[in-house]
Amino acid sequence: MTDARVAGVGLTHFGVHPERTSRDLFAEAGLAALDDAGVDREDVEAVHYGNFMGELSEHQGHQGPLAAEALGLDVPATRYESACASSGVALRQAVRDVRNGEADVVVVGGSERMNNLSTAESTEALAIAADDLYEVRAGMTFPGAYALMASAYFEAFGGSREDLAHIAVKNHANALGNDHAQYQREITVEDALDSPPVAEPLHLYDACPVTDGASAVVLVSEAYAAEHDVDADVAVTGTGQGGDNMALQDRDDMATSPAATDAAEEAYADAGVSPGDVDLAEVHDCFTIAEVLATESLGFFEHGEGVTAAREGVTTRDGDLPVNLSGGLKAKGHPVGATGTSQVAELTKLLRGDHVNSEHVADASTAVAHNAGGTVASAVVHVLEAVDDEEVGA
Amino acid sequence: MTDARVAGVGLTHFGVHPERTSRDLFAEAGLAALDDAGVDREDVEAVHYGNFMGELSEHQGHQGPLAAEALGLDVPATRYESACASSGVALRQAVRDVRNGEADVVVVGGSERMNNLSTAESTEALAIAADDLYEVRAGMTFPGAYALMASAYFEAFGGSREDLAHIAVKNHANALGNDHAQYQREITVEDALDSPPVAEPLHLYDACPVTDGASAVVLVSEAYAAEHDVDADVAVTGTGQGGDNMALQDRDDMATSPAATDAAEEAYADAGVSPGDVDLAEVHDCFTIAEVLATESLGFFEHGEGVTAAREGVTTRDGDLPVNLSGGLKAKGHPVGATGTSQVAELTKLLRGDHVNSEHVADASTAVAHNAGGTVASAVVHVLEAVDDEEVGA
Repeated sequence: MTDARVAGVGLTHFGVHPERTSRDLFAEAGLAALDDAGVDREDVEAVHYGNFMGELSEHQGHQGPLAAEALGLDVPATRYESACASSGVALRQAVRDVRNGEADVVVVGGSERMNNLSTAESTEALAIAADDLYEVRAGMTFPGAYALMASAYFEAFGGSREDLAHIAVKNHANALGNDHAQYQREITVEDALDSPPVAEPLHLYDACPVTDGASAVVLVSEAYAAEHDVDADVAVTGTGQGGDNMALQDRDDMATSPAATDAAEEAYADAGVSPGDVDLAEVHDCFTIAEVLATESLGFFEHGEGVTAAREGVTTRDGDLPVNLSGGLKAKGHPVGATGTSQVAELTKLLRGDHVNSEHVADASTAVAHNAGGTVASAVVHVLEAVDDEEVGA
Repeated sequence: MTDARVAGVGLTHFGVHPERTSRDLFAEAGLAALDDAGVDREDVEAVHYGNFMGELSEHQGHQGPLAAEALGLDVPATRYESACASSGVALRQAVRDVRNGEADVVVVGGSERMNNLSTAESTEALAIAADDLYEVRAGMTFPGAYALMASAYFEAFGGSREDLAHIAVKNHANALGNDHAQYQREITVEDALDSPPVAEPLHLYDACPVTDGASAVVLVSEAYAAEHDVDADVAVTGTGQGGDNMALQDRDDMATSPAATDAAEEAYADAGVSPGDVDLAEVHDCFTIAEVLATESLGFFEHGEGVTAAREGVTTRDGDLPVNLSGGLKAKGHPVGATGTSQVAELTKLLRGDHVNSEHVADASTAVAHNAGGTVASAVVHVLEAVDDEEVGA
């Protein structure tokens, strides 16, 4: 088995681009990734593509071939849909295929266009990530679902709106200078606390925005990197996926996310690392409470301690374990199908030292990406490790 | 590398079941497959699930966890969407994962519910498998697209409506006695020729119906089969996938399907067989002309000879190379996301000798499944081979 190496990454600006189609966004990110990789387009053997709501926002299914075509390719192309974890799931299969010798060069990424819809329409479209029969028809939307999870967490472990506000403030600060980020402005705890309620206890600044954008990653085998002298000093060394019941009502507990715990444990075992080895993480903070649940699922903190860690600054860029140095979904934005691979793109840049926040993690060698679907009925975790150049030829 | 063995298969009735949800249909097929396999549900490590239009027909995305939940599982579950090739693509990744030791037991399948929509709605929903910007907005629907392909074929190679009628007649005859088939009644060439035009040269009996249904296959590794004494005498020995430009206008030629040719060549090479080794096939006959294109892409006949072979009865159940002994999409029905794995389910039963049409292929050992998306912008081909029991223990 060979490592899957990240040879190149590409991102569009994440923001409000209602006039741009998903395929147009993906062309920009995918071609940027190929350019960054310095890989011949002719060498690409497959495209793995994540998208969530194209059927509703663009009246478009069967997006695999369109994603390949956007990059000028007619190779086998597969579209994965796992709600907000769509491109994370695509990445998992791409990693497995490269590792197992099924392909030497693949492009994996995702794209989403949402701002061509009204806010009511995009909220309704996002709701298809929940159980239509048993949740959505009862009026559930995602702010409400995560509000239930936040309430359950507070009841089980304690915590307050102010604790969550620290996460929003941190992620906005991290996004400053990240040219790809939707929001590049600082906010204060007071701003967050004073923002209008969406679904108590969550207010506006607890939520990620509605975002258009795309991301892509070029994965290559070790052998290909060596043979073609491709700079690929970040390896995906661990992959894990977990699943859970779809509806919150069918879970034993709303204050934890066992699917993410399962995914993390599998990914750590796969990489041969433990949570203590992790230097930085990008986690799925669709709402501030989701970052708390994620950092606990990843084993960084005990259940109930994630909120304390956030309040005490452990996860800030100068803390012991920086989380969401990109700005996270909260400030970088959340173009649903693009989020999973955007996390890996940001982590790769952080590990390579060419990210605006790289200086804060100069000695980092191990990173984790956590991508979740719905109320974490799906979760995908990947471990990335910086590889010593000399090892490449070994 | 281990073979991926088919341990069990399950199918619902294919037909008009507007009152049944996709998850309900999949539960029936998946549990039947597990029962047929005699595999403990606790041993299932992943669910790979194909669905095409759930967002439009059931306001439901994120269907992977729902598919797993329908089987009482909370394992990692991924939804693949590749238009009419959705579960074929899911199968490909499942086969690769089992072969490469990523899992010993997986369930792969698909489901589709369409008859809860009006005919106009389902026709429009099916159209999202074409290019929305450059085809659908110009008024294209799939009967029209395949009519263009049929016209191009007739112009390039000759052929007539009557030739195509033989395919409809054959597939209806094959469906007789197949309890899962939507249409279990014979038709004549005259019936087909006299049926109302849909898009010239295609008439009503050239088209598959709108179908609700589900299918599932349990794949196991050789080692698991041996250790647990699981009867798994059919192996998936070859897998191939091809891609093409999405829109017909961007193809060099509408009278051939190079994506299917690529998929077939890869699958044959993978299995170490040639088209001449194939004893029977299930191909993607969404329209009669599609069966012609498929049998040529699979290398059974030269380009332009598929229509002759159909006319001369080569592909009937008593011909040299029986095609669509299940009844095909034409008569068995085409619940889009379920079709790919339903082909493998039918072929498995045919090879095992427990299909109503098994007597016609008593000596068969090598079969091929051909599943296509859109106007064959995606294609997936799998080779199945009967395995001698004694080899299992070898």
